[in-house]
Amino acid sequence: MSFFRSRWVEAPAHAGELEPTALPRGFRAAGVAAGIKPEGLDVGVLVSDAPETVSAARFTTNARVGAPVTVSREADLQGLRAVAVNSGCSNVGDGRRGLETAVAMQTAAAEKLGLAPRQVGVASTGVIGTELPRDKVVGGVRTACDELGLDAGGFSEAILTSDGAPKRACLEVHLRPGSVRLAAQAKGAGMISPRFATMFCFVETDAELSAETLDLLTGVCVKRSFDRISVDGQLSTSDTVFALASAASGVRVEPESEEELRLGEALDALLRQLALEIVADGEGAGRVGRIVVRGRPDAVEPVARSIANSPLVKAALHGGDPNFGRVLQAAGQAWPQGEPFVADLEIEGRLLVSAGDVVEPPPPGLMNGSEVEYALTMPGEGGETEVFFSDLSPEYARFNSEYAS
Amino acid sequence: MSFFRSRWVEAPAHAGELEPTALPRGFRAAGVAAGIKPEGLDVGVLVSDAPETVSAARFTTNARVGAPVTVSREADLQGLRAVAVNSGCSNVGDGRRGLETAVAMQTAAAEKLGLAPRQVGVASTGVIGTELPRDKVVGGVRTACDELGLDAGGFSEAILTSDGAPKRACLEVHLRPGSVRLAAQAKGAGMISPRFATMFCFVETDAELSAETLDLLTGVCVKRSFDRISVDGQLSTSDTVFALASAASGVRVEPESEEELRLGEALDALLRQLALEIVADGEGAGRVGRIVVRGRPDAVEPVARSIANSPLVKAALHGGDPNFGRVLQAAGQAWPQGEPFVADLEIEGRLLVSAGDVVEPPPPGLMNGSEVEYALTMPGEGGETEVFFSDLSPEYARFNSEYAS
Repeated sequence: MSFFRSRWVEAPAHAGELEPTALPRGFRAAGVAAGIKPEGLDVGVLVSDAPETVSAARFTTNARVGAPVTVSREADLQGLRAVAVNSGCSNVGDGRRGLETAVAMQTAAAEKLGLAPRQVGVASTGVIGTELPRDKVVGGVRTACDELGLDAGGFSEAILTSDGAPKRACLEVHLRPGSVRLAAQAKGAGMISPRFATMFCFVETDAELSAETLDLLTGVCVKRSFDRISVDGQLSTSDTVFALASAASGVRVEPESEEELRLGEALDALLRQLALEIVADGEGAGRVGRIVVRGRPDAVEPVARSIANSPLVKAALHGGDPNFGRVLQAAGQAWPQGEPFVADLEIEGRLLVSAGDVVEPPPPGLMNGSEVEYALTMPGEGGETEVFFSDLSPEYARFNSEYAS
Repeated sequence: MSFFRSRWVEAPAHAGELEPTALPRGFRAAGVAAGIKPEGLDVGVLVSDAPETVSAARFTTNARVGAPVTVSREADLQGLRAVAVNSGCSNVGDGRRGLETAVAMQTAAAEKLGLAPRQVGVASTGVIGTELPRDKVVGGVRTACDELGLDAGGFSEAILTSDGAPKRACLEVHLRPGSVRLAAQAKGAGMISPRFATMFCFVETDAELSAETLDLLTGVCVKRSFDRISVDGQLSTSDTVFALASAASGVRVEPESEEELRLGEALDALLRQLALEIVADGEGAGRVGRIVVRGRPDAVEPVARSIANSPLVKAALHGGDPNFGRVLQAAGQAWPQGEPFVADLEIEGRLLVSAGDVVEPPPPGLMNGSEVEYALTMPGEGGETEVFFSDLSPEYARFNSEYAS
């Protein structure tokens, strides 16, 4: 079965799928168990051995960030050669001690790999407000550096918290001068995952491209993938995307070229599918919804977010209930006050509401599938956006109320 | 036990409690079963027999409103003499037919009571997007007009949907020239209640005051009560507050007088307690939270809303878990981007986080009570607000996903 499981992601025609744990040329990775989590892998290191590697990064926009985000922001974000990551503790809210631990992770990886500390990005995910045990995490980083191999299997497991399964893929992208590889490993069960926090995505390619081009492609594709999903509307303190390009394929991707377009299309499909995996893996989630909103350019974004984050819409999605009243109520809440609001609503391609009034009762079973599409057309021209969201189940509430900090 | 059960509402010293279903002088009310709901009372009428009655009204700010809100907005909102209400169907999204049914309710009450239609306000609550049966509701209004009495018991029951119990009180407010009565009947289990929609509150007093004074008092007190609560952050299509003053006590309340202040204090306490009843009655709710936010004036409102509406904060409240990390994450999400964010957080008066870092682990049992207070102090001076919110339980998700529209 293809990695591109969602009907909302088109598998790029000019790319083939390799083993999901494969890495592009020039990269090595490892994951080890350092005892930060009660069991399982919890520290990972990823490195590019090519000196000419360029990188790009994106972080949460939450005003309150974890120590690893603070430390990574100060690194050489266009020239990263490695990342050191742990799960089990997010290292947020631990003051100077937390900052020193993030620096210690960075320094330990740099020393083992013969790099400057500013060439290493760090990221942590897990419980907020507890101490990340420095000895364990630093020891784990050192051990991982000793165990680096040509496979991302252990690395992709070491970054997980409440995820149901690893989220990873490796593509062979066919460009005119030759093929490049493009891989990514992600984690997360939401903007903030219900039990622990944070989404991560680590992207590797052996294409040869400038830091500016990598930054541009990363930025555009993040906006169309991880920026368009919501499990619970909660922005994490630690969201991190690192992209590294090793140039080891020898295939050059010039700005504004056909190659850039093709690599960008592959990256776009890869990150969108990974983003959908995160939504589908939201705690207790049974269905994924996609809301497409068209109309006034300044209103489509708040309306789409209002619908995607409405607990009533999400509970109805869980129950397979085409409750159009809740969709319109959530839309009306976000529509500019005082402006006339009359909308059409389709669910799964069926027009249920026209000009604000009910057309016909929804047919039984309309929302039985695992993916449900809503399309709302509002007054105004030119705006269009989409948000992917998970449903709200009793399991979500139970999980998050039984967890003790 | 006093009606003022919440520690967050001070019972006004100059007011006594009468029977909760009592009405001020000049008012009559009734509730009847018209068959709109499968069982129970579902149509109510409230009338002031005094020709000098003045009134005030507030409606939802949702851009999408129900037909009764549209019809009521066109009425004489400073000179209402009666309201006709039904539960079981909100009459939203039914186009011209819905508007005609709302007008038919209004006209039927006016004819039976010898009033002009524009002297009658209407309100409906229940399922969105289904037809309100006109014969039943109009028949119910006529029967209720025949059964009017000096008690609000039936009326306060006829307006309920998923509420656990009627929400009502009647106070005797001692002013210098004499005493006036002040009563209110409310419904709702949230900004939008989980299963059906809408909050209603009907306020009656026999004080003699101008329409402008009544409007001012109503506006101020609604802002401090129903505007400060959230069950699920969902703004209803049909929220309605009607306040009527019959002047039947003969006690005059002049603008900017000591009497206005005392009556306003009593109205404030009455509406705040009713608002808290609505939060406590949220579907599946076990605890009520109060978040108090201080700091930058432009940031306190979005931060307080972000915390009160975070499903993670609400699930932790349900579990009695003082999960300060989720509170700070929700606050940071709403803080102005690029501005430094460092905050103190108290829960139940205990300082848990100081300048962004953990002070000490929360003591066990800190959140065992039915009301839990959070206080967040952020950078900046002069802003302060509060929001009351319910917890998020598995029952909420179950209830709202099992309900079929």
